[in-house]
Amino acid sequence: MRQDWESQIAEMRKGSVRDLARLITRVENRDLGWLDAMQMIYPMTGKACVIGITGSPGAGKSTLTDRLTRELSDQGFKIGIIAVDPSSPFSGGALLGDRLRMKEVSTLDDVFIRSMATRGALGGLSQSARDVVKIMDAFGKDIILIETVGVGQDEVEVVKAADMVLVICVPGMGDGIQAIKAGIMEIADIFVVNKADKDGADQAVADISAMLELSADEVSSQIPVLKTIAATGDGVPDLVTIMLKNFEAGRIRTSWQKERIKEEILSLLEKEVARHLRSRWDQNGNLDQSVKQVIARKKDPYSIVQEMITLMHLQ
Amino acid sequence: MRQDWESQIAEMRKGSVRDLARLITRVENRDLGWLDAMQMIYPMTGKACVIGITGSPGAGKSTLTDRLTRELSDQGFKIGIIAVDPSSPFSGGALLGDRLRMKEVSTLDDVFIRSMATRGALGGLSQSARDVVKIMDAFGKDIILIETVGVGQDEVEVVKAADMVLVICVPGMGDGIQAIKAGIMEIADIFVVNKADKDGADQAVADISAMLELSADEVSSQIPVLKTIAATGDGVPDLVTIMLKNFEAGRIRTSWQKERIKEEILSLLEKEVARHLRSRWDQNGNLDQSVKQVIARKKDPYSIVQEMITLMHLQ
Repeated sequence: MRQDWESQIAEMRKGSVRDLARLITRVENRDLGWLDAMQMIYPMTGKACVIGITGSPGAGKSTLTDRLTRELSDQGFKIGIIAVDPSSPFSGGALLGDRLRMKEVSTLDDVFIRSMATRGALGGLSQSARDVVKIMDAFGKDIILIETVGVGQDEVEVVKAADMVLVICVPGMGDGIQAIKAGIMEIADIFVVNKADKDGADQAVADISAMLELSADEVSSQIPVLKTIAATGDGVPDLVTIMLKNFEAGRIRTSWQKERIKEEILSLLEKEVARHLRSRWDQNGNLDQSVKQVIARKKDPYSIVQEMITLMHLQ
Repeated sequence: MRQDWESQIAEMRKGSVRDLARLITRVENRDLGWLDAMQMIYPMTGKACVIGITGSPGAGKSTLTDRLTRELSDQGFKIGIIAVDPSSPFSGGALLGDRLRMKEVSTLDDVFIRSMATRGALGGLSQSARDVVKIMDAFGKDIILIETVGVGQDEVEVVKAADMVLVICVPGMGDGIQAIKAGIMEIADIFVVNKADKDGADQAVADISAMLELSADEVSSQIPVLKTIAATGDGVPDLVTIMLKNFEAGRIRTSWQKERIKEEILSLLEKEVARHLRSRWDQNGNLDQSVKQVIARKKDPYSIVQEMITLMHLQ
């Protein structure tokens, strides 16, 4: 098994896109030996810049991601894109267009796109994004873009896997204020007012800038607020310049780093412990036994859990 | 501490709404002793009927919940409502109106409303809903309505805590087909086409019925499809009649019961194990140590987790 992972990692390192895709799938599925595989991959990582892209629905995140990718690709960077769709059974339709458009970009050399949904990500969406970032990094991607579809709490967690986060707003939606209310400001490194040809673009920039200045925090007051028109590409080269400058200046939020690693270790541990508990308990039949006792109202779920915690010497 | 919980539970049982609210908050916060408290509460439960209400955004779920509550309250039932808002930083505004309207209902005697968001629910939204259902049941509520704001995967999980699920659709949105695509059909016990005064209501009913008949499953083919106009109350008495008949006939999906209890035990266990691991590891400083090693790239998160799993004799 280990042999198998090793050779696949070696093929991936040689540039096999097919092995890259398969490795990602196997890690997402938590196939046997995945933890060992990630341990092998880890020393090959640490070079890529990871950029999170989030914002309100309809802000043009996919179009902007597309433009950014072209621009960065033209400048010679190798790009990985992680497109995150938390599966929402009632919202399918609208995304299809975006995804089709993304396919054009995927025909560019050195651009690799991976979609990710809650259902497929056994270790949780945030952790899966962190795993995939590392695999793409080991593959040799220079820049990895993580694009989320919406901006729920889940998506905010996902973009926290990035070194730098772009928050995309549009004019006239009061998004600036919304963003700040919701604590999005804490994660934004660059604000982008997209669709800047619409009325109210300058007002939106002014609103966001004012909010940022109001914040006592020195970092916040230095966050750039840019205008783009993703549909035409206007403003995108400037955005790229600022992004790259930020990276060169090491102006990424290292204050996060500690929290991020802590979170990663704990969430990995929780999920792994849970997986082991589930499979073990399920295999020896104790779980079915417990379920029967609850159905017969001889026991309750809370007591069963209490007993297990005691048995595991956790309390 | 146990004393404290005991007296609060006793007050709640005597009808103190204030203690009901506080108990819920303490259990949601996982205050020390909460597992013991739930063990005390458990034998007082098992009488309430739990109804999940879900459907596409804009289908009129809140208005319908409001109408159902009035109707059931008029018939002498004591009602508990759990309104689930998975916190979405960018969507605040629209919900406010609903919540304000709900406040009117909350002035009715014997109606208790509790809102619930991802952030507040330390044990996860689904488990929090299950806990709150039990506390409301112990308080003496006859019928508990769980209303979700959207229909993401999270919401689907939440309504699974119910004995019976209403799926609310509206005419002309192709919702019937969407619902079935998304596996919502598996959880629907009653389909409601709301805003039935709009064009296409009969078509929507026909579409959903056809889909249900197509399903090989015998249960599905007996699922009622009703029309309502929540804004005026049309169709709501019929809906209530069918809901109550279903309960009397025991026509609730007991096939779920085993899966549901299994899921509840496992998710409780996972969260509790995780909480214990976190606090213990955090307290003894090992976690900070590990984080430092990762920052220095002397170790990686995957190896650390592997070691912990081995230490816990899980592998």
